[in-house]
Parts: sequence; structure tokens; C-alpha cells
Amino acid sequence: MPSIAKAYIATSATSALQPGVIERRDPEEFDVRIAIKFTGICHSDIHTARGDWASVNFPVVLGHEISGIVEAVGAKVTRHAVGDRVGVGCFVDSCRECVNCLSGEEQYCLAGSVSTYNSVGRDGRPTAGGYCTSIVVDENYVLRIPEGIPLEAAAPLLCAGITVYSPLRNRGEGPGKRVAIIGMGGLGHMGVKIATALGAEVTVLSQSLRKQEDALRFGAVACHATSDPATFSRHQGYFDVIINTVSADIDVDQYLSLLALDGTLVIVGLPSKPLTQRAWSLAGFRRNLAGSKMGGIRQTQEMLDFCAAHGLGAEVEVIPASKIDEAFDRVVDSAVRYRFVIDAATF
Amino acid sequence: MPSIAKAYIATSATSALQPGVIERRDPEEFDVRIAIKFTGICHSDIHTARGDWASVNFPVVLGHEISGIVEAVGAKVTRHAVGDRVGVGCFVDSCRECVNCLSGEEQYCLAGSVSTYNSVGRDGRPTAGGYCTSIVVDENYVLRIPEGIPLEAAAPLLCAGITVYSPLRNRGEGPGKRVAIIGMGGLGHMGVKIATALGAEVTVLSQSLRKQEDALRFGAVACHATSDPATFSRHQGYFDVIINTVSADIDVDQYLSLLALDGTLVIVGLPSKPLTQRAWSLAGFRRNLAGSKMGGIRQTQEMLDFCAAHGLGAEVEVIPASKIDEAFDRVVDSAVRYRFVIDAATF
Repeated sequence: MPSIAKAYIATSATSALQPGVIERRDPEEFDVRIAIKFTGICHSDIHTARGDWASVNFPVVLGHEISGIVEAVGAKVTRHAVGDRVGVGCFVDSCRECVNCLSGEEQYCLAGSVSTYNSVGRDGRPTAGGYCTSIVVDENYVLRIPEGIPLEAAAPLLCAGITVYSPLRNRGEGPGKRVAIIGMGGLGHMGVKIATALGAEVTVLSQSLRKQEDALRFGAVACHATSDPATFSRHQGYFDVIINTVSADIDVDQYLSLLALDGTLVIVGLPSKPLTQRAWSLAGFRRNLAGSKMGGIRQTQEMLDFCAAHGLGAEVEVIPASKIDEAFDRVVDSAVRYRFVIDAATF
Repeated sequence: MPSIAKAYIATSATSALQPGVIERRDPEEFDVRIAIKFTGICHSDIHTARGDWASVNFPVVLGHEISGIVEAVGAKVTRHAVGDRVGVGCFVDSCRECVNCLSGEEQYCLAGSVSTYNSVGRDGRPTAGGYCTSIVVDENYVLRIPEGIPLEAAAPLLCAGITVYSPLRNRGEGPGKRVAIIGMGGLGHMGVKIATALGAEVTVLSQSLRKQEDALRFGAVACHATSDPATFSRHQGYFDVIINTVSADIDVDQYLSLLALDGTLVIVGLPSKPLTQRAWSLAGFRRNLAGSKMGGIRQTQEMLDFCAAHGLGAEVEVIPASKIDEAFDRVVDSAVRYRFVIDAATF
């Protein structure tokens, strides 16, 4: 029998979220039902809620940084048990048959992975995310949250954490490598923590030096203001990798000039305008411009285990559901240190 | 005592090349004097001659695809001997002390490598290239041309050959990899030959199918016309690497869409306008946009040895010096199969 979840629902691009209820399917053979404890507020939620992005099917329940406790499992579930601490990230299903799914890169499923919200599940019904009290997900798309990470600090790892972990790990960043993180918001602050834990030398490139103290506390060796032209003249050719976590438009040539031979600028924050750079900025010192989105299930689990082993979690401000709209405004204004997390008990 | 070389000299951006003479320094301790036999015509020569690029110091002797025979060596030369078949490429010196020089990547010398022409040598004098009868170069910047490659077919390898070999080799292209080459001119036709010899499956992406027969003869499995929109819809996500050898403006998003997960579009032809692409074209399937220019001395030698071992050389049309200006026009019109080479006996 389907269950009822209390939710905050986006009903149109111009109205505030509305409290309400949604129906969750009864767990099928391989399903896990999760009592949600915390859900992070990702900038994508705001773009979706406000209609910045194409094709939003209102009403929609946002949220793809979900942590909670398993409260029911289907008959054939083996990976999770009632009472387990678990999480759900940006997608809840994929074709499982394409070359990318088979190699554990479900986020790049050739048939299109099923997003946690504003997508259509295998059952043909719209998916609904974590701004509510429960969710039902196939066990293969549910992550274990190790004991070491509080559930509120774990939720943002499911999107913000894996999105920075994946390119750092895939490129072998570690001891002897010089990593710069552009922007110190939800993604950026996790980038600093994770790159530091991987053993790299980490520098923050932020519009101002307002967050310098935090950057150093999270492990960075330096913080440079991108509003100061000297930042770009002084550090030419220095970094092995630069992760851009901001979705504002950036001067790609300027950032490429900070890369050493074979260095890479990885775009994980997605500006709405096209990126533009001179060919010579790439060829001159054999530099690369790359993109990356999240990680697969296997790597997301690895990231959670890595964070637990290194005592890492997101810096969060826990809010009640009634404050979501206010929180949206503060995210847009970059006035949060560093991730809002909604207490699901308040839905 | 300095020697005199007969040359064709670019005296201004608007006049035809002029026959004349230049002075070459007497070989110093580590110098090699080469009797030039053939010099390839690279598109860069034309850009330089016609003032398309900034800061050309006329008069200038063009040419950085040089093959010939050693005719004199300095007292301390050990790497080459009189009578050896040798070549000179795009640079004739570098600082030899920076991290890039020390790792054999002299083309990315942090102090700036000394270009074969239109640059200033360590002796403070302007460098002069291969559109003449001889050149004097430090032995460390002179390549051995194996017996298997005719000197006229070897000359274009020193720029066109290494420029495509380097990214293919650095990225480990070989059996099981799907390589596409955009453009089948001087660089592109060598890209097809080299990628095929490396064991990759090679496809040519050319404006039309005019050169299809040659492409297949050089080893390609297919040739697709980029003027046909179906090329882009049919081959989405197919290639591991695409090498862009053309300097015309390209639709970067279109080419990125042809790449598989983790695929790379390598820019070696340098369009004058900035490259523009959507961030999503990169992030959507973790694709990369990279640049590359030539290779270091060690890799250039490796390329020459590889070409000899596989019986590869450039397809050339040998011309007398008097036809250089006409050849320039035909290069601009893409009306050469596939590289003009000047017979140095005609200077």
C-alpha cells in the first residue's frame, strides 16, 4: 500500500514552496523506503524552483542531497536493512545496460539516468525528491552513510561532495599536486576539505578574502581574491588542476593561464552563457578544459567512506522547512556557510 | 668565418618573396651546419609572410620543416657527423634549465623556446629558417632522419608530423581506440597515417568527401563530410579522441557531441577567433577540450623513428623556389595533396 509523505512542494516558478503531502509507492522487491532526516539545499533546486532551467514539470518536490534511516525494505533487498543510515543523491535509477552503467558511471547513462526529482521513473511516474519525510528508491541507488558522519553533515556530500571528489580522484590529485578551487560555497568548501585530505596543496580562488579564515581552517595553504588582477599575474602556470565550482560567468583564459603544463581547468559549476577561450590558451602550454558531473554509485560510496575515514563532513546550517524560501535567497546571495540542510522533522 | 646561404626572403607583408643571400655563423663548439635539401611549406609560414600574426620582424627567412645533410660540425659535437641525414623543426634552442626543458618538453620552455625563424637566438641575432641553402643549429636541436624516409617526405614530419604524433602518443591512442581527424591537409593526412600505424580505428571528418579515396588509402576506415548535418547526428558519442587540424572556426559543441565518455577534442590547428562551447557539452559526458603544439626533441626523434619503422612519410609535391608564392595561394585554397616541399637546390 502506498504511503503518504509530508512535503514542501514547488507549484510554479513564481510562488513560494507549499506544504502538502505526496504518495510514495510501497517498496517493491528491490526497493528501500527511507525515513528522511535531512535534505541539503543545492543551487540546482533553486534553478528548478524558479524556472531558470527548461522543462520543469510543476508541481515538483525538490532535493537530491538526502540522508536518513531505512524504515522498510522489499523482499529481495540485500544491500540495506531496516535501521541503516543511508543517503540518496542526484539520481535514483538508470538503464543498467549501457557501457557507462556497466562501468559504474550511471550518472552518464546513455539512456539518461533518472534524476531524483523532475524526471520520470521506470514506473512511468514523476520522481519526487527529498523535500519531504520519506522516499522509496531501488537499493542499488542507495548509499551507506558510515557512522562517523552526522546525518546532517552527510546530506550535502551526496551532490556537492561527490561533484568535487570525482574529478579530484579521477585525475589522481594528491601529494605533490597543486589544486585550486574557484569559489567557496557548498561545492567549494568540500573541494578544499577533500583535496586537502587527498594530500594536495590547496589554494582557494574566491571573489574576495571574506572566507579566507575558513579556507585556511579547512586546509587551504592560501586564498587569493579573483577581484585582484595581481592574483592572475602572480600565479601564472602554477596549478596542476583548477576546479571551478561557481556557475557565474568566468574569464576562462585568465584561469587557464594559471595552469602548469598539462594542467586542467575542470568545470563543475555550470554557467548559463557559453564558455569562451582562445585556442592558444589551451595549446600554448598543452592545457585542458574539462567538465564533470557527480560520480557513479560506486565512487559516491567510496567518497562517503573516504570522508568518514578523514572526519570530513559539510559545514551546515540546519533550518526548518518554513525557512526554505528565505534560504533560497541567501544561497543566491552567497550568504551561507556553507550549506543549508532542511530538518525533515519540520515538514 | 661566416658562410653565405642563398635564400628566398619575405621583405614585407604585401610583397612576394625575394631571392637573396643571408649570412650563417661559423659553427661554434656545439653547432652543426646543415646543407638543406628540402623545406616544407607550413601554413604558419604564410601567416607570417602575410602579416596575419602580430610582430613579424621583416625581413624574415621562413621555413621550419627542414631536412638536409650535415656538412660541418663544431669541435665538441658528438650527436651528429658530417654526411648524416638530419632535420630541424620549429625551434632551434631553449633555456635548457626550466622544468619543461628538463623534462624534454622544450617546445613549452618557460623562458620561451627560440623559434626557427622570426625569433632571436641566444647570440642576440634574428633567427632565419629553411627557405635557403643552409642552417647552423646547436646539435641538441637537430634530429636524425632514419634511412627509411626520403628527405623530401621527411621534411614535413618536423612540424606537421610531430604536431599530430604528440597528442596521439601522449594520450595512448592505439588498438581499440577510435580516433577522428578533422581536416585532411598537411597535418591531417599525417594524423591519419600515424594514428593508423599506432593501431587506432581512424575516421576522417572533412568538409567534403573529395579526399575520401586518399583517406582510405592512408588507413582510415571512414570519411564523413562535416557539411552534412547527418555526420553529427549519426556519430554522437562515438570517438575517444578527435584531433582538429584546421585553423578555420569550428562549432566546438558539435564536435564535442561526437565524443564518448572521457573523450577529448584536441586543438592543434589554431583558429584566430576564440573557441566557444557550452559548459554542458563538456560536463554532460565528462568530455575534454585540449590544446597541443609540436613535441619536444626526444619525442620528435621518436616520431621520426616510428615513421621509418612503419614506412610513413608525408605526401609531397616538390616545387622550385620560384613557385613559392603560387604554392602559398594553393595552400590557402587547400589545393595541395598534401604538403609542398621546396627543393633547396633551386634557391
